[in-house]
Amino acid sequence: MAKKIGILTGGGDCPGLNSVIRAAVWKGIEEYGFEMVGIRRGWKGLTENLTTPLTLDNVTSIWNQGGTILNTSRTNPYKEENGVEKAKDTYKKLKLEGLIAIGGDDTLMVAYNFFKEGFNTVGVPKTIDNDVAATDYTFGFDTAINIAMETLDRLHTTAASHERVMVVELMGRHAGWITLEAGIAGGADIIIIPETPFEIDNIVKRLKKIREGGKNYAIVAVSEGAKISTVEDEDEDGSFVLKDLKKDAFGHVKLGGIGKVLADEIEDRTGYETRSVQLGHIQRGGPPTAFDRFLGTRFGLAAIDLVAEGKFGNMTALKGNQIVTVSLEKAAEKTRTVPDNLKALTGFFSPKI
Amino acid sequence: MAKKIGILTGGGDCPGLNSVIRAAVWKGIEEYGFEMVGIRRGWKGLTENLTTPLTLDNVTSIWNQGGTILNTSRTNPYKEENGVEKAKDTYKKLKLEGLIAIGGDDTLMVAYNFFKEGFNTVGVPKTIDNDVAATDYTFGFDTAINIAMETLDRLHTTAASHERVMVVELMGRHAGWITLEAGIAGGADIIIIPETPFEIDNIVKRLKKIREGGKNYAIVAVSEGAKISTVEDEDEDGSFVLKDLKKDAFGHVKLGGIGKVLADEIEDRTGYETRSVQLGHIQRGGPPTAFDRFLGTRFGLAAIDLVAEGKFGNMTALKGNQIVTVSLEKAAEKTRTVPDNLKALTGFFSPKI
Amino acid sequence: MAKKIGILTGGGDCPGLNSVIRAAVWKGIEEYGFEMVGIRRGWKGLTENLTTPLTLDNVTSIWNQGGTILNTSRTNPYKEENGVEKAKDTYKKLKLEGLIAIGGDDTLMVAYNFFKEGFNTVGVPKTIDNDVAATDYTFGFDTAINIAMETLDRLHTTAASHERVMVVELMGRHAGWITLEAGIAGGADIIIIPETPFEIDNIVKRLKKIREGGKNYAIVAVSEGAKISTVEDEDEDGSFVLKDLKKDAFGHVKLGGIGKVLADEIEDRTGYETRSVQLGHIQRGGPPTAFDRFLGTRFGLAAIDLVAEGKFGNMTALKGNQIVTVSLEKAAEKTRTVPDNLKALTGFFSPKI
Amino acid sequence: MAKKIGILTGGGDCPGLNSVIRAAVWKGIEEYGFEMVGIRRGWKGLTENLTTPLTLDNVTSIWNQGGTILNTSRTNPYKEENGVEKAKDTYKKLKLEGLIAIGGDDTLMVAYNFFKEGFNTVGVPKTIDNDVAATDYTFGFDTAINIAMETLDRLHTTAASHERVMVVELMGRHAGWITLEAGIAGGADIIIIPETPFEIDNIVKRLKKIREGGKNYAIVAVSEGAKISTVEDEDEDGSFVLKDLKKDAFGHVKLGGIGKVLADEIEDRTGYETRSVQLGHIQRGGPPTAFDRFLGTRFGLAAIDLVAEGKFGNMTALKGNQIVTVSLEKAAEKTRTVPDNLKALTGFFSPKI
Repeated sequence: MAKKIGILTGGGDCPGLNSVIRAAVWKGIEEYGFEMVGIRRGWKGLTENLTTPLTLDNVTSIWNQGGTILNTSRTNPYKEENGVEKAKDTYKKLKLEGLIAIGGDDTLMVAYNFFKEGFNTVGVPKTIDNDVAATDYTFGFDTAINIAMETLDRLHTTAASHERVMVVELMGRHAGWITLEAGIAGGADIIIIPETPFEIDNIVKRLKKIREGGKNYAIVAVSEGAKISTVEDEDEDGSFVLKDLKKDAFGHVKLGGIGKVLADEIEDRTGYETRSVQLGHIQRGGPPTAFDRFLGTRFGLAAIDLVAEGKFGNMTALKGNQIVTVSLEKAAEKTRTVPDNLKALTGFFSPKI
Repeated sequence: MAKKIGILTGGGDCPGLNSVIRAAVWKGIEEYGFEMVGIRRGWKGLTENLTTPLTLDNVTSIWNQGGTILNTSRTNPYKEENGVEKAKDTYKKLKLEGLIAIGGDDTLMVAYNFFKEGFNTVGVPKTIDNDVAATDYTFGFDTAINIAMETLDRLHTTAASHERVMVVELMGRHAGWITLEAGIAGGADIIIIPETPFEIDNIVKRLKKIREGGKNYAIVAVSEGAKISTVEDEDEDGSFVLKDLKKDAFGHVKLGGIGKVLADEIEDRTGYETRSVQLGHIQRGGPPTAFDRFLGTRFGLAAIDLVAEGKFGNMTALKGNQIVTVSLEKAAEKTRTVPDNLKALTGFFSPKI
Repeated sequence: MAKKIGILTGGGDCPGLNSVIRAAVWKGIEEYGFEMVGIRRGWKGLTENLTTPLTLDNVTSIWNQGGTILNTSRTNPYKEENGVEKAKDTYKKLKLEGLIAIGGDDTLMVAYNFFKEGFNTVGVPKTIDNDVAATDYTFGFDTAINIAMETLDRLHTTAASHERVMVVELMGRHAGWITLEAGIAGGADIIIIPETPFEIDNIVKRLKKIREGGKNYAIVAVSEGAKISTVEDEDEDGSFVLKDLKKDAFGHVKLGGIGKVLADEIEDRTGYETRSVQLGHIQRGGPPTAFDRFLGTRFGLAAIDLVAEGKFGNMTALKGNQIVTVSLEKAAEKTRTVPDNLKALTGFFSPKI
Repeated sequence: MAKKIGILTGGGDCPGLNSVIRAAVWKGIEEYGFEMVGIRRGWKGLTENLTTPLTLDNVTSIWNQGGTILNTSRTNPYKEENGVEKAKDTYKKLKLEGLIAIGGDDTLMVAYNFFKEGFNTVGVPKTIDNDVAATDYTFGFDTAINIAMETLDRLHTTAASHERVMVVELMGRHAGWITLEAGIAGGADIIIIPETPFEIDNIVKRLKKIREGGKNYAIVAVSEGAKISTVEDEDEDGSFVLKDLKKDAFGHVKLGGIGKVLADEIEDRTGYETRSVQLGHIQRGGPPTAFDRFLGTRFGLAAIDLVAEGKFGNMTALKGNQIVTVSLEKAAEKTRTVPDNLKALTGFFSPKI
């Protein structure tokens, strides 16, 4: 009888997930003779026994689809009452002999803990922010930066026509990769990322210098997680205090994303007409790029190979051009943030101040 | 000596403006032997004598560019101190013998008034909202609905993966054309436009029916100018009062666009995870569609013909497949809003309630 | 019992067909309570009784899909042995009470003849070439010109980098609409359409003038059906004979599309490096534009209304902004080709010779 | 006085070249105080002293442009009469103190030879085929596979509607990277690359099996340089001889690209309607992807650093995530072709035969 292998996707959706699923299912069935079963809604599906059969037929037409046909959730069975027991029960009831978990560090750490308790898990790393230390690239990131770049491209002509500053808020709570790469690619004049605290005065000075240099508009790309500060009125003792731009004079949090807050501040301080755009969920939707589809495919093939070879407790990773195997415990290792040599690019294509 | 003809663009920028400019300049120079001059920043440029030469060379490479190479502003000389005098002075100083004004009703009404005072103006209508009564279509609208539609397309997979309701706020203060056409094209389940007041309870009922019908996600497209109301707590006399959704229980305006407010309300009332996206300025940026480039080209050719034939005080318009001429006084005629037969499409592709 | 209504699609596929199907099915079921049934492979399916049920479920996810989920063929039952008898038999066996045929003039003329024999047919016009006289626009055309335009846009930078002439062959056997509109929109220097015979010498002269004017590359857009001729060696009596460029000195047909033949000829005669691209089937594939999806939707709704109202023997059409009804016998009326005023645009954006 | 540094681009154009130029010019001027000068038309420009100044202003707006603003050619001064002498003369006359050559192995080998003769050259590798052994990735490739993938995506619906086989010919004379990655990403059923000789019988068997399996269409991606053979009629001694498909029974070369020849052969042998598309020059035109713009930018920055540090005779390369330095003599090292483990993907997503 065919071995039965499960697949689940956890955490935020990401272009390329379906490429992983399609490849793993195809190779599982055609080359290894496995029976493939989808666990719906991430780990939640394992605790609640939500499954769907995965045949060649129902993965053939998903080659270009974003998202995940298996649905996803952020449920962590280790944080739910009896979650782990229920997950183990389902695993046994389904008679699984292997389980591929595709997800971010949360999802993969569950896979790792589950493995340590004797279950046959392998992992595929997924992070649209490209900040997993264990792999050079993950899928989803390339799609995100292309969508963000196309938006930046589009905004040049409208910004120039109105002689405006345009602030674009992009994804990235802790790592500035999307903003950095999309910003450079999309011709942003100023790029602001979480890794580098920015002072509003410096931004204003740069914007003035750009205009004085004869360019009548500017594009600013900013990560949602960027910290921008300002110098508060002198303290009584004469010292200065840096103040978070997102708080007003009374310490109340200003509403709107950092992009909106920054745009208001820029307009106030420069008198230049300034508008903001918050790209939001658009960055993770829709058809993946070729890079993400190909990498997802390679990860899917490698994951099912790990299952077939019994190399449980491991995850796939990309090193240079090669797919390699890494222990699942590396999944939670420290976040890969923008290193110093690339931080230098954030203000690169604008005049020195 | 060659006759000198000016061109200006006023109001919000719009994909297709450069197609008008390119065509008018090319035909003006090559066929009529005019000298063409750009007036920068709309009517402001005429009051302040801001000009730029327009040669074949500098319009050749703008065939695919959004925005306007002439810059734009919302300045109305009739509302500025001495604005009209200054505009007349510049017109005379430049020795213009004709002036093409491309813009919305404000810009065109200035052109009309200027014409009535004896100046040689012709107009080209521009409105990204497609709400000018005097013409079947204007350029810019087609680009806007395609950008909006592509965004809606993208959001289906992410909404489905997370089993979410996704609310997308699109342009349209008074007319719902963009939301209606992009919504139908982009597979939105519910479409909310300014022309039809919506009650939140009805939206909630529809969303529940969609989910009960087995579709685990929904897309809602809403115009920025849509009015959504809710039934307030009963009055003392037992009657109900409709309350604007954008105000809270204390009558304070809620922050965020209507999309954000609606998304919060939906999540509260249904328990479905709900997110919002506000497309904003992206809808008017970037390369125009073929429709907008071709229509802009035809308008530009027709406008310079009007100048050459001395038919001042008129504007170009599209009727069916034909370019026609309409008096500039029609420019301000009542806004073309979504008619009843098309309003019926707003809730068409969702279950009846 | 619910009335049973069939739908079929015939002829070449076209972006927007699925929008027609989706709208007609949705309204048929939800508003009129019909049972909807798909006839597969156009009229062939009616002769061979190939059907598929059409429910809300199986048209919900096709909002953005090109092609036709019903498949298509060019079969004409009036040209097949017993074709008409078999089609009639199927119609009766299926107990159809109405049939919507979506297709070009061939498909619609079958619908008309079928109607005259007492069957309840209505039509929806489809032609990617936009050459049906009875309607201002058909769906599919807008998608085709946008794909063609994006290709032309792309070729500018590669042509400029290599200082080449680039010839792009586009669809259009008898009507030059696609080449004209995409050519103008895509910044082509020279546009060659079937409606206007071109002499190769004139093209060469224009190309030389473009280069002498300082522009180091050129883009030529040519319809697949364009006729380009050359002056043959003098006859014995001194007169000149025009020779079809696609034939060599021995009267043999040269291989390759007109684009390839033209490119070779240009390189021979000018010495400019010249390359050709034949866009082919790409022009009709993939997601439709917003215009095509919205028009397809309106046509689908109008077609099912015609069925519900018993207005058989008619087809839908667009006049200005309105959907109107036209007799099916108009479907075969003379082709709408590019009129003289628009023919003038073919050489517009290149120097006079 | 500022040091004067030249830049040239040689060989076929490639999306990302302008990103290299923009980055090198910006850093050269802003950080090192160099005077930057463009050498036009590759090495030809150095032999003929064709130059153009490169200032911040004239590279600011090229952030999203394909091709190369410096023009390109395939001229090799070592193969031209007095070519090298003339190149040396120009170098001296211009008082260059460094020269960045961006190009394929030909261009880079000239740079290497020039360096060995005492000139200050550095290189940036460029190959749209991604087949340079010395670097993990080059720019241009990612754009090419995305354009090819989008074309494949588009063809699915038209192929399915007509129940056709669609053959798409993609770039790649010696290496199958573009066809492999775009083919996998674009859902091709069969992928044919130069690295693996294919026999037509196997292709036909696979196509039959796909149809028997219930999928009514197929997509075949084939590299322009693929070798497809067929078994010729038995020899007198009973042995079989493989025959190149591009030759007919008389040994004459069949006209048309391999895609066209293959499509004809498939239709002949299977009876399935089969069409071909040759993507051609479209694959290298237009705006680069984010990957190519970012990599081009990093290469440009690294190249000008090499100049500033006097590390001549070297080229930039990507290893994993890092930009590294490699001797120019490596540029001509053996082509990186598709390795065995990835060759296995060519027939992966179609049924085993």
